[in-house]
Amino acid sequence: QSNVTIYGIVDTGFIKKSGHDVEMGENVNNRLGFRGVEDLGSGMKATFELEHRFDLNNGTQKGKTAAGKDREFDGAANVGLKGDAWGAVRLGRVNELTTETIRKFDPFYQYGVGAMLEGNQRSPRIDNTIRYDSPNWSGFHFGASYSLGGNTDSESIDGYMVDVKDAGADNDGYGIMLGYDNGPLALVGNWSRLADSKDSSVWNLGAAYRFGPAKVELVYQQTKDKGWANGEQADWQKVGSWNNGRVVNEYQGVDELKEKQWLLGLEWKLGPGRLNASAQWMEVEASGGQHVSDKDIYKYAIGYTYDLSKRTAIYGNVAYTDYDDKEVAAVYGDTDDGTYGVQVGITHKF
Amino acid sequence: QSNVTIYGIVDTGFIKKSGHDVEMGENVNNRLGFRGVEDLGSGMKATFELEHRFDLNNGTQKGKTAAGKDREFDGAANVGLKGDAWGAVRLGRVNELTTETIRKFDPFYQYGVGAMLEGNQRSPRIDNTIRYDSPNWSGFHFGASYSLGGNTDSESIDGYMVDVKDAGADNDGYGIMLGYDNGPLALVGNWSRLADSKDSSVWNLGAAYRFGPAKVELVYQQTKDKGWANGEQADWQKVGSWNNGRVVNEYQGVDELKEKQWLLGLEWKLGPGRLNASAQWMEVEASGGQHVSDKDIYKYAIGYTYDLSKRTAIYGNVAYTDYDDKEVAAVYGDTDDGTYGVQVGITHKF
Amino acid sequence: QSNVTIYGIVDTGFIKKSGHDVEMGENVNNRLGFRGVEDLGSGMKATFELEHRFDLNNGTQKGKTAAGKDREFDGAANVGLKGDAWGAVRLGRVNELTTETIRKFDPFYQYGVGAMLEGNQRSPRIDNTIRYDSPNWSGFHFGASYSLGGNTDSESIDGYMVDVKDAGADNDGYGIMLGYDNGPLALVGNWSRLADSKDSSVWNLGAAYRFGPAKVELVYQQTKDKGWANGEQADWQKVGSWNNGRVVNEYQGVDELKEKQWLLGLEWKLGPGRLNASAQWMEVEASGGQHVSDKDIYKYAIGYTYDLSKRTAIYGNVAYTDYDDKEVAAVYGDTDDGTYGVQVGITHKF
Repeated sequence: QSNVTIYGIVDTGFIKKSGHDVEMGENVNNRLGFRGVEDLGSGMKATFELEHRFDLNNGTQKGKTAAGKDREFDGAANVGLKGDAWGAVRLGRVNELTTETIRKFDPFYQYGVGAMLEGNQRSPRIDNTIRYDSPNWSGFHFGASYSLGGNTDSESIDGYMVDVKDAGADNDGYGIMLGYDNGPLALVGNWSRLADSKDSSVWNLGAAYRFGPAKVELVYQQTKDKGWANGEQADWQKVGSWNNGRVVNEYQGVDELKEKQWLLGLEWKLGPGRLNASAQWMEVEASGGQHVSDKDIYKYAIGYTYDLSKRTAIYGNVAYTDYDDKEVAAVYGDTDDGTYGVQVGITHKF
Repeated sequence: QSNVTIYGIVDTGFIKKSGHDVEMGENVNNRLGFRGVEDLGSGMKATFELEHRFDLNNGTQKGKTAAGKDREFDGAANVGLKGDAWGAVRLGRVNELTTETIRKFDPFYQYGVGAMLEGNQRSPRIDNTIRYDSPNWSGFHFGASYSLGGNTDSESIDGYMVDVKDAGADNDGYGIMLGYDNGPLALVGNWSRLADSKDSSVWNLGAAYRFGPAKVELVYQQTKDKGWANGEQADWQKVGSWNNGRVVNEYQGVDELKEKQWLLGLEWKLGPGRLNASAQWMEVEASGGQHVSDKDIYKYAIGYTYDLSKRTAIYGNVAYTDYDDKEVAAVYGDTDDGTYGVQVGITHKF
Repeated sequence: QSNVTIYGIVDTGFIKKSGHDVEMGENVNNRLGFRGVEDLGSGMKATFELEHRFDLNNGTQKGKTAAGKDREFDGAANVGLKGDAWGAVRLGRVNELTTETIRKFDPFYQYGVGAMLEGNQRSPRIDNTIRYDSPNWSGFHFGASYSLGGNTDSESIDGYMVDVKDAGADNDGYGIMLGYDNGPLALVGNWSRLADSKDSSVWNLGAAYRFGPAKVELVYQQTKDKGWANGEQADWQKVGSWNNGRVVNEYQGVDELKEKQWLLGLEWKLGPGRLNASAQWMEVEASGGQHVSDKDIYKYAIGYTYDLSKRTAIYGNVAYTDYDDKEVAAVYGDTDDGTYGVQVGITHKF
């Protein structure tokens, strides 16, 4: 028992979005985890993490593999070794470096209605990965990861990989991160490619400056999305694909989307809580197909989190997203060219 | 770790029912849960519950949403706030008030072969719910709940809600409970409507009187079942529906079943355990369709639970159910117009 | 909390097998479990076990019932009573006796690339079972189990049992084990029949002798496989069955496979770890169909496990399997008549 720590987050509330009824939904992602550290002596440790992710409102698991299997431990499933001198290596399902590090520069941490626009190549956790994290040298640190793609050996090819291979979308994944965080300044830069993504890629830069109770953040991210990620084809590229009963194949025939996005953020400790605000602009360029065009997306969000204790808070967030048209809104899961979102709720950590 | 309490129940044994081979099965429902309470000061607390439900005999999860997803936490998944002065509010998946409170007036607690006849609108736990429970004032207490139905906005309608909406079965859910429990007397009254149930409803009254080692209980419950509950159509109403290889569509074309039921119960502390007994009568009225008719169901059950400790017990239960005919037996999951059930087993709480 | 012990194993690494890309995979099976013991007094105890099994590399559950349900607790789900004088009885999902006891005579414990050739009737855990284990009398001990098959009552037959019954494959399961383990010598003998296996059966004998840092092991096992186990038909017998995109129905029309296998094993405490090695021979006789024939399989394996602590180890294993031809290799999940396997990885227990 003493070898295992149980931890988690429960969060829910009410969300009203354009084109949706009032629904219950989360801000911070719900989770229940088990982790432990064993001291091996000589500055060495063994570590593990196993983390359920779920929808609190109906008790269902979150996450599914490309092969269609539910993920029991969507949040983390890994074992590793850690050395004071050389850093940490983990094997299994881990946080993806690009998402893990850049979301710290979004005041909404990529959660809830106010979240940073999520590129189509975002994958917060990745499978079949070996990940290295360096120690922290006066604020400098770096990380790297390598992910195996699905098995494509013709003698034993994984069922779902037949389509992936036919589409030329089978590739291993990579990630590299360089960071600095010391005193008032934090900086990060990432480059990554998801496994079985047809060589899609993401790179980004984040910068934050703290002064008094405030923090100002700036993010630039560029995504080259070829319509595949982790062995699954994007809805926007599928022929006659459906989302909640509506056909969303307006991008049929398009080979690649290029997303360039800027985010300016503010976190401000105000009273017994924190005011968060952000302004974003994303440019989406489609190439291939009949619908080649550039589209713009603007998003503005503001919210306040009121701390009842260190572990429990209530929050309210509001956001408005201005899409060029419904066609591009559909790619990002929205139904209207002007989409608002409002949410109130409670977060409890344990 | 200190923030989380792990608890649960494991129960299994052997069950022989008419029309079935001997099978392994439970009495008290199997569960493994995680819960916690955080003291926020000033008489306020934050709470959470996450509870797996499963079949002990093969290790599989129990529960599925109308959308077909397995429930990881079928038993509970909620977060809440609690005040000494004003009661408790919980958000997420919670116990349904009508089931939670009336089952206390069934000596078999609606478990196992001796259980109270379960109306077709019974749903022990409900999703997407905000539930309030009052403090206890000298035995008086009340509760209320509000449940959101599935999303039916035409822009983003949930896949499974298309059929529900076409059937006019989309509605939000409500529940209200008034209770008194003090000294020898306990009383409860409920009214509830499940979400996406075509405005079906249930109301009931329960009364119990304790004297010496015995408790006598009386329940009246009335259910108006329009063939839908929690976004799912009842088997009895489906065209050509199947249950375990047999067509059970005798009620095809029937619009509504009205169930009126009485239960008289006895719990008697006898020796190192407890004798339980009950007698029931349910009248089922079908309206609409060609098969309009009234049917009667009588059920008699007796059992003994022998306590090995406060946490562990062995039990034996016997029940006989007399249905008017096989047609109505099928609606309640039985195959014969006279159905007996016998079970022996073990329950362990942790 | 004090009533529950959390335990588990996390293990992963890299595996390269003939006909497969490099993949991440386990040696010791990954698990997360909850168990407890309650002292009932007079030498009596109540016990329970609930154990998740999963793939660490993508966080998905392992195990599926014949009815197609995922197993939340694939590793164990049972409740029991234990008496100092008379032994232990458990009910639910438990370890199958034949597998549990014979794997102790395989230096690789039937894990990873070096594992003992697993007969087609191997089922490490079984459902709907009552299992008895005797106390240990100076090294002598025995066990027995009885498993209920699926429900075949014509009034309520389980959906998946229709095919099982039509094939005449419905039967209850049995197991019996006799063992001795004292001083340098360990012996075991088993006979078992899985439920719904068309009366297939397995028997085996194991012997081990310890001297100094070494242990030498010998196993003989004979399997009569009629193409069914736990209500599921074997791939080798299915008409036009597929495995990872390849038809593997070469054994179509064959009624029964008879497997006779020998294993000679060595475990040697060498330096800070353990050297494991084994040599095996299996003879497969097919009867019925056009492809009646005898096939031979030879397998050689060697590995070293280096202990970083009592709970954490790294390992490397190599094995080579020589099949008579590809046809018989397919029955055992391999693609080549000469199949090698190499793996390195890490195991952490908690």
